[in-house]
Amino acid sequence: MSADPPFAFTDPLARALFEPRSIALIGASADPGKNTARPQQFLRRHGFAGAIHPVNPGRDEVLGDRAYPTPEAIPGAVDHALIMVPAPRVLPALESCARKGIPVVTVYSDGFAEAGGEGERMQRELVARARALGVRLLGPNSIGMINVAGRVPLTVNAALAADRLPVGRVGFVSQSGTMLGTVFSRGQARGLGFSRMVSVGTESDLAVGEIARMLVDDPGTDVILLFLETLRDAPALARAARAAQAAGKSIAAYKLGRSEVGAQLAVSHTGALAGSDAACDAFFREHGIVRVHFLETLLEIAPLLARDAGRPPRPAARKPRVAVVSTTGGGAAMVVDSLGLRGVDVVGPPPAFIARMATQGITLREAPIIDLTLAATSERYESVLRGLLADDFCDAVLAVAGTSAQFHPQLAVQPIVRAAREAGKPLAAFLAPQADASLGLLAAEGVAGFRTPEACADALAGVLTRRPVRAQTVPDPRLSERLAAWRPGASAGAPGRVLDEAAALALFEALGVPVVEREVLRSAPWSHRVPYPVVAKLVSADLPHKTEAGAVTLGVADAAALDRAIDAMRTSARAHTPGARIDGVLVQAMQAGLAEALIGYRHDPLVGPIVVLGAGGRLAELMRDVSLRLAPVDEAQAREMVGEVAALAPVRGYRGLPAGDVDSLVRALVAVGRLANLPGQPVAEAEINPMIIARDRAVAVDGLIVWGEGT
Amino acid sequence: MSADPPFAFTDPLARALFEPRSIALIGASADPGKNTARPQQFLRRHGFAGAIHPVNPGRDEVLGDRAYPTPEAIPGAVDHALIMVPAPRVLPALESCARKGIPVVTVYSDGFAEAGGEGERMQRELVARARALGVRLLGPNSIGMINVAGRVPLTVNAALAADRLPVGRVGFVSQSGTMLGTVFSRGQARGLGFSRMVSVGTESDLAVGEIARMLVDDPGTDVILLFLETLRDAPALARAARAAQAAGKSIAAYKLGRSEVGAQLAVSHTGALAGSDAACDAFFREHGIVRVHFLETLLEIAPLLARDAGRPPRPAARKPRVAVVSTTGGGAAMVVDSLGLRGVDVVGPPPAFIARMATQGITLREAPIIDLTLAATSERYESVLRGLLADDFCDAVLAVAGTSAQFHPQLAVQPIVRAAREAGKPLAAFLAPQADASLGLLAAEGVAGFRTPEACADALAGVLTRRPVRAQTVPDPRLSERLAAWRPGASAGAPGRVLDEAAALALFEALGVPVVEREVLRSAPWSHRVPYPVVAKLVSADLPHKTEAGAVTLGVADAAALDRAIDAMRTSARAHTPGARIDGVLVQAMQAGLAEALIGYRHDPLVGPIVVLGAGGRLAELMRDVSLRLAPVDEAQAREMVGEVAALAPVRGYRGLPAGDVDSLVRALVAVGRLANLPGQPVAEAEINPMIIARDRAVAVDGLIVWGEGT
Repeated sequence: MSADPPFAFTDPLARALFEPRSIALIGASADPGKNTARPQQFLRRHGFAGAIHPVNPGRDEVLGDRAYPTPEAIPGAVDHALIMVPAPRVLPALESCARKGIPVVTVYSDGFAEAGGEGERMQRELVARARALGVRLLGPNSIGMINVAGRVPLTVNAALAADRLPVGRVGFVSQSGTMLGTVFSRGQARGLGFSRMVSVGTESDLAVGEIARMLVDDPGTDVILLFLETLRDAPALARAARAAQAAGKSIAAYKLGRSEVGAQLAVSHTGALAGSDAACDAFFREHGIVRVHFLETLLEIAPLLARDAGRPPRPAARKPRVAVVSTTGGGAAMVVDSLGLRGVDVVGPPPAFIARMATQGITLREAPIIDLTLAATSERYESVLRGLLADDFCDAVLAVAGTSAQFHPQLAVQPIVRAAREAGKPLAAFLAPQADASLGLLAAEGVAGFRTPEACADALAGVLTRRPVRAQTVPDPRLSERLAAWRPGASAGAPGRVLDEAAALALFEALGVPVVEREVLRSAPWSHRVPYPVVAKLVSADLPHKTEAGAVTLGVADAAALDRAIDAMRTSARAHTPGARIDGVLVQAMQAGLAEALIGYRHDPLVGPIVVLGAGGRLAELMRDVSLRLAPVDEAQAREMVGEVAALAPVRGYRGLPAGDVDSLVRALVAVGRLANLPGQPVAEAEINPMIIARDRAVAVDGLIVWGEGT
Repeated sequence: MSADPPFAFTDPLARALFEPRSIALIGASADPGKNTARPQQFLRRHGFAGAIHPVNPGRDEVLGDRAYPTPEAIPGAVDHALIMVPAPRVLPALESCARKGIPVVTVYSDGFAEAGGEGERMQRELVARARALGVRLLGPNSIGMINVAGRVPLTVNAALAADRLPVGRVGFVSQSGTMLGTVFSRGQARGLGFSRMVSVGTESDLAVGEIARMLVDDPGTDVILLFLETLRDAPALARAARAAQAAGKSIAAYKLGRSEVGAQLAVSHTGALAGSDAACDAFFREHGIVRVHFLETLLEIAPLLARDAGRPPRPAARKPRVAVVSTTGGGAAMVVDSLGLRGVDVVGPPPAFIARMATQGITLREAPIIDLTLAATSERYESVLRGLLADDFCDAVLAVAGTSAQFHPQLAVQPIVRAAREAGKPLAAFLAPQADASLGLLAAEGVAGFRTPEACADALAGVLTRRPVRAQTVPDPRLSERLAAWRPGASAGAPGRVLDEAAALALFEALGVPVVEREVLRSAPWSHRVPYPVVAKLVSADLPHKTEAGAVTLGVADAAALDRAIDAMRTSARAHTPGARIDGVLVQAMQAGLAEALIGYRHDPLVGPIVVLGAGGRLAELMRDVSLRLAPVDEAQAREMVGEVAALAPVRGYRGLPAGDVDSLVRALVAVGRLANLPGQPVAEAEINPMIIARDRAVAVDGLIVWGEGT
């Protein structure tokens, strides 16, 4: 075996997965028209250098290769098995692979978790057995793995019937099997190549995050593209993102489910506000993963990411600025229009730049787009591009080409390719006409070329708004001690998983949230030190909607009025919810303000703890005017959140009106986010609604805490 | 001339524009490398059957054709001249054309309106002269006209260097010259052909609307596509849209400027709310023009529009429903996700349909997407498609194909093409892999095939949400009489163009808006019949921001308090705006409500009178939570508007809470929109802010009217 090429991967698991030297094809058909005959044909067609062992108990030979009745019958070591037998026979096949000592098994067979019911049960059994046997699983329902650069097309995907493998430095991981073929074929047609492509199927064991982590360590991969339907293991993907940043590599993702109506309705409003796609969006953004919005962006963005990786992040405080050079006004305008929708500015050349170009005999006008339509020679185009790529007034450069890209590819593309070689910032090219040859030339030179104005803007905006990976959440046992008193069952007074308003406000205060001046009165006489006028509310975990139950009285003027209010509220509450337990009366100072805010905390089922900020009151969830972050948040993140909620503009000093106490609001956001630092993250949901923001203070006046099951 | 083919057009102007039999090329170069030599070469290359006359004073012959020193020297009639000389020589050339009796002149030359300043002046002069001489102008800065079907490529666009003209039944009109080539080349590559293509340049005379109107009358054109940077003559385009609907033809538009920040800030909030792109959006929607959001949609949507034209409009009350058949789950999911974002539902097959298919031996599951991945044979695919196209449970059908579309185009496309032949509803095909041959087959059969999931969803959503053209606005002279009292200068009390609040509310009341109970008091003693508590405001057109001027007092309890309030307001107003004229005191009943609304009316500079509804108060313009329509609106439109404003949900009976008096709000919207029925549309702006909506009533409590200049 001394003629074997060296391994790309160092990790034994990654080697067995991506670079097997011996493969068992379990259930390989001898009928070349069958799906299950494809992997063997593809491996041969594309020059797999290792050993191929069909496993087919009915035959001695399959399509020219010696066949074996079981994996164990294969002579010598086997690195990777592909199981293609019907679902009920997968488990015995796995057992057989384990006995043979095969470390990685890919399961093509379907009928497992994706089929529900009995399939789910079978998958659980399969995974448990694989764990026990020490075998790692890709799938079930995986269409396979293609080590493109290493010539290992271990897949059933029909797209591999292609003549050539498009080799590149881009890894692709997909939760959809058919998308492997879609992306493969589209890349091939464009000259956009791949290093490795993996279909993860139902992710029973090896999931997107772990595979992405392997690709970060892959010397043949610079950029990792993901096609996602959901997030099954966000922490693993977060680890991959962290490793990618450290290694100067990039991750981009296309994720389905943008229009999914969040089905999960929680006790508080937060559930409805933070649909899980918004949470995924936050997860991507806070892990430096560029989310793309068009299928074609996923293909076309790679060169842009590859060249941008490892650069210091752009300042978040100002909009990214793109300079545009074009030989077609309409073509450039389409990209610019889309960039504007994504919050990217287009900047025209400043006077100093115009003057510098003039010394080279190039006349530019002060306009947002540098239009070289009439003056365009290849040399001038290149000079302007070089100048822009070297100048500080823009963060990226967009080169747009017209008809020349169609009829004179070499001429049109040359200045862009040349200028790109020393580019210190992202450079993207959009070709307005049908210009396949020009796109091919750009791809061959590793320059980002775009076929549509929309994908071009999508990719540029994605790269330019990319942020560094967030810090890891550190558990804080001292915080746990500080909040111990409010744990369910911690004391006789603790009412259970759902804290009443009084207890919730006390817990928020302990976290560091500024809370309104208040007192809990347990019995008559109802004396207190809160200055009148006050708000009086019944304390009861059995009345989640107090206003509807008549358990709130505003503007109580004096002690006599308080007595009357309490009597009236008790009568009303008893009528509304017979048997409701009433634990006392909460008396709060009346608080006026410029605006009200809602601060929510909950566990998104996919990405974990999140913090949400919105306008307070019952309209919050209707308006979708919210800002969302993974929890915890630091002060800078909290301040960004306040800036993202339109309804809080008055608080920020809108139109010269007096501003509110944003600092206290920020402090409250940071404090609520700290719930994620509690070891075990035992709080399921928390909400302050409203937080009243006045000029000189901001205080929580109502709140809710729900501890998770089993806490 | 008996061998000439018959004309497609009947209108003499359209014939001269599109079907000239004799063409003058003024400024035609004898250097084949020059731009100005292209039209002659293109006409020859693509087989123009008429006479070509280069006009070039320096030569007797140009590229093989006899050349003339002036148009007048050309023997026989000339139908159409293309002027390509520098800007200062265009006017003399036009004069010469007029003397020759040439009815249509296309001006390629630039340096006119698009250059600003002197160019604008030259354009005005050119147009005035053309009008006087009876010559119609296309351009200046037009890259020309291509009668594709008639083989008249009268254009400078380099894309015509192509070998073939892609002939089809789709007309294209563009404000961008280079986009002519972009769309031509992209269409050619896809087998998507055109009937006529026109670059309108700066639209000094012949503009988009008039050209589109000609194409409606063109027997060779079924679908009209527009590439727009702005709208220069909305009424003309409205006429074309109305004619198109009557003729069973369709119009689709791609318009730049979605991200343009509305620069025009008016006195009232409405200006900031209704950016002109939103108004254009309303214009398109209300004229049955499908606005597309991706360049590629513009190309790909035509077959969908051609087959849908003339069908009765779908009910607006419910979301459109699309049935999806797919052989690739991931591919279909991408389209479905995008459809969801556009408010289109995806419907799975109902039990009755599943049962019917079962009788044909086809097993379907109850799921949103009909996935035929494993069971897919060409026959089954076709049977399911036919079933869906004939069934009432969906409004359109989406067919998605996977790898087969790449490797077996005929097989993959055949069932779609066959089913489409008798389709009674829109059918769109999305091909997930690179599948050029399949796309070509679909195009050849006139079936809408899409290369990207996003354009596919964009086109389907556009067609399915298309609405019939709105009724024409009818001027109402009696309304004019009814409002005469408030015209500027109509009486001594009318203060000018800007009506004070008291006058504005009176005018709104005369229009039919429910207005709060009130009285205007001109002098002490301040007695009135409005029941206490009341709101008191100073009446003054000089104090547009009354709250800031201290000219409003809420909750005035009795007559003594009113006296004190009026004194205090006068002092405060004098300090705020010295010299402000105070015309009295407006006393209004205090009005509580469930919500506040803003109703605005203004003239959008592009599309004319519009009505805007939003949440009331100072946050309205921040939230962008508004609904906009062309004015006037009927009751059904007004009711739709109320449904589109998220902040008005409480009024609509949100979560079982008591609903507000929506009928009165609707009445107010209809009434305000009536301002557009005033002959001459003399009101420039009007605003009710807020309209307070209570359970049993909705009343305007504050308002503003601004008459236009010169009224």
